[in-house]
Amino acid sequence: MPEMLKKFIRDIPDFPKKGIVFKDITPLLNDTTALKRSVYLLCEPYLHNRPDVVVGVEARGFIFGCAVACELGAGFVPIRKPGKLPYETASASYDLEYGTDTIEMHVDAIKKGANVLMVDDLLATGGTMAAACELVRNQGGNIIGVSFLVELAFLNGREKLGDYDIRSLITYD
Amino acid sequence: MPEMLKKFIRDIPDFPKKGIVFKDITPLLNDTTALKRSVYLLCEPYLHNRPDVVVGVEARGFIFGCAVACELGAGFVPIRKPGKLPYETASASYDLEYGTDTIEMHVDAIKKGANVLMVDDLLATGGTMAAACELVRNQGGNIIGVSFLVELAFLNGREKLGDYDIRSLITYD
Repeated sequence: MPEMLKKFIRDIPDFPKKGIVFKDITPLLNDTTALKRSVYLLCEPYLHNRPDVVVGVEARGFIFGCAVACELGAGFVPIRKPGKLPYETASASYDLEYGTDTIEMHVDAIKKGANVLMVDDLLATGGTMAAACELVRNQGGNIIGVSFLVELAFLNGREKLGDYDIRSLITYD
Repeated sequence: MPEMLKKFIRDIPDFPKKGIVFKDITPLLNDTTALKRSVYLLCEPYLHNRPDVVVGVEARGFIFGCAVACELGAGFVPIRKPGKLPYETASASYDLEYGTDTIEMHVDAIKKGANVLMVDDLLATGGTMAAACELVRNQGGNIIGVSFLVELAFLNGREKLGDYDIRSLITYD
């Protein structure tokens, strides 16, 4: 079934820069059946081991993150770019091709020992998600899984994430 | 019931700048029951008049947008900041306190005559949502409703949106 979802992913050559083929998920989001099926499949492994909260990273991680949280009966925690969250935050930085980037989470977002499912649309190099997992661990969260709609396996993002239960619905080798 | 949701909204004084009291929705997102109830109440008026797609604006509009789309059995269309959407886009600009801002939508996002529900977490001055509605109308979309979790009624955002079916779960006068 996940392979059927692949036909809703559109290749955009040379985006965001020359030589890169961008995997555009908007046709999948636009299709009622493909969207509902994707959310269900992201939830399925955790139906009998439900997380207390689902964490998603701004901006595209918000799309599936909250939908998965609702389907699993969990809360949703947004991780955001610096200066966006209004309450006290903790931050983590990660390397980009050139320079670094930072993400933030509210310090009261995760209760100690809470079971946490991390969700994003895309696993590329894994830098953002590794930083997000660090924020959750630092607050005492127990990460029960890290789930993606799409994985670009050739970028080896899994290696950066370590020993979690890492899943993706659609893989490009 | 919507009034019960109010206790999950946290006031943050002087954010993002001095004199403004920010309505922080993250405690509501974090609470399983309040989150699920909010999504249901956003959907309720459209259960018997379902949209073909739900539209949400980056970034916080993605949180409820996709969850509402899934609950209603609709597709989800993201409107994004400039340069983020990979395919051909249409854009609309709107005034800020100082300067202007621009948002973009894929040109193939809305089928002509499609019924569209617009969703965001917050109605403040209404500038962003008015521009989003313009993008949808320009593609021939039929806006059946514009729904918010929170409305800051004292900012008169409704006036900027015109004659739509505008709803909000929590209102601050």
